[in-house]
Amino acid sequence: MTPALAPDLQRSLDACLTCLAACEHCATACLQEDDVQMMANCIRLDRDCADLCATTARLLMRESPLHAEMCRACAAACEACAQECGQHQHDHCQQCAEACRRCAEACRALAA
Amino acid sequence: MTPALAPDLQRSLDACLTCLAACEHCATACLQEDDVQMMANCIRLDRDCADLCATTARLLMRESPLHAEMCRACAAACEACAQECGQHQHDHCQQCAEACRRCAEACRALAA
Amino acid sequence: MTPALAPDLQRSLDACLTCLAACEHCATACLQEDDVQMMANCIRLDRDCADLCATTARLLMRESPLHAEMCRACAAACEACAQECGQHQHDHCQQCAEACRRCAEACRALAA
Amino acid sequence: MTPALAPDLQRSLDACLTCLAACEHCATACLQEDDVQMMANCIRLDRDCADLCATTARLLMRESPLHAEMCRACAAACEACAQECGQHQHDHCQQCAEACRRCAEACRALAA
Repeated sequence: MTPALAPDLQRSLDACLTCLAACEHCATACLQEDDVQMMANCIRLDRDCADLCATTARLLMRESPLHAEMCRACAAACEACAQECGQHQHDHCQQCAEACRRCAEACRALAA
Repeated sequence: MTPALAPDLQRSLDACLTCLAACEHCATACLQEDDVQMMANCIRLDRDCADLCATTARLLMRESPLHAEMCRACAAACEACAQECGQHQHDHCQQCAEACRRCAEACRALAA
Repeated sequence: MTPALAPDLQRSLDACLTCLAACEHCATACLQEDDVQMMANCIRLDRDCADLCATTARLLMRESPLHAEMCRACAAACEACAQECGQHQHDHCQQCAEACRRCAEACRALAA
Repeated sequence: MTPALAPDLQRSLDACLTCLAACEHCATACLQEDDVQMMANCIRLDRDCADLCATTARLLMRESPLHAEMCRACAAACEACAQECGQHQHDHCQQCAEACRRCAEACRALAA
C-alpha cells in the first residue's frame, strides 16, 4: 500500500524487519531452552540487534538522510549476533544467524 | 524464515508493520507539502501511531503475554490517526488512514 | 534545560525513565546470574516492561494527546514485572520491582 | 535506585536522555509555530535524533558491548540536528541545539 522505496533502501528495510523478527523470536525461544545459561550471550545480542534493526528500519521507512550512519551500527550488531547465534544448533539460532548475515550485508552495502 | 506465529498474532503483526511504514512515510511526505501548517496534526499523530505500532509489532514478534494491553493502546492511536489522515486528500494520507483502520481493527480483535 | 512538563506528566516521565533503567539493568544482571533458568520469566518481563516504559516516556516528553492509553498499557506491564521481580531476592530484582511499582502507580494515576 | 554505571557511560546516558527530551519537545513546539514550513527540516531531524538517542540510551543502560557503534551513529545524528536547530531563534530550537551538541560530544568521547 505504501509506495515502494528505492530498491536498495527496500532491500535493507526487508532485511532489517526479517532480522528483527528473527531476533525477537530467538530471544523468546532461548529463554525456553533447558540450558538457558548457555544461551545467555545469544539472548543479550538478540536484544541489542533487535533494537538496532528496529531503529534502522524506521529510518529507512522515512527515507532519513541519516540512514547510512545507522546502517553501519546495525551491520556491526548483526555481525556480532550472527557470530554468536551461528554457534548454537537450535533452529531459532541458525535462522537468526542467517537473517543477521543477510541484514549485515544489506546494511553494509547501503552504508558504503 | 522465522516460524509463523499463530494466525491472529500474524495478522496483527502484518497490520502493525504496514501501518508503521505508512505513518513514517506519511509524516515525511507531509513535511514536504506546500501547506505544512495544515498537516501539523497529521504529522503529530503519525509520530505517535508509528511508535505504538512499532512497540506492538515487537511484542507480537516475541509472543509477549502483555500483547493485549499494548494492542488496545495501539488501536486507540490508529483510530485517532485514521480520523485525522482521512480528512486530507493527499495519497499518503489516504493510504495511511486505510492502514490505520486495518491495524486498529486487527488490534481490537486481538485484544478482545 | 528542556522546559518542565506539567507536574503529573513529569512525575510519570521520571517514573518511566527510572523503571526503564531498572528493567534494562535487571535483565542484564539476570543474564549473568548462576541460575539463569530461574530468571527466565524475569528477563522476559524486563524486556517487555522496558519497551513500554520507553514508548510511554517519549509520548510524555512530547505531550502526546494519546499518553493516557499508553500509560494504561505501561501500568499493566509494570505490574506484571513487579510481581515477577518481587519474588527474587537479587538486589537488581528488588530494585526493579520497586521501580515498577512506582511507575505503575504514576501511570495509573495519570491515565485515570 | 539503579546502581550507577561507569562515569563515562553515565555521562553519555544523561546526555542522551536530555537530548531525547529536548528533541521530542522541540518537534512538538515546531509543529505549533506559525511558520511550520520553515521548521520542516528541524522536525525531521528532531525525529531521527530522538530515535537514535533513545536507542543509544537503552544500550548504555544495559551496558551493551555494542554501545560504541551506536554512540558513533548517535553523535552524527546529534551533530546534524544541532546544526539545523542552531539556525532557528526559538527557545526550543536553541535548547535542543545545545542538548544535541553536548550529546554528540559525550557520544564521540565514548566511541573513541
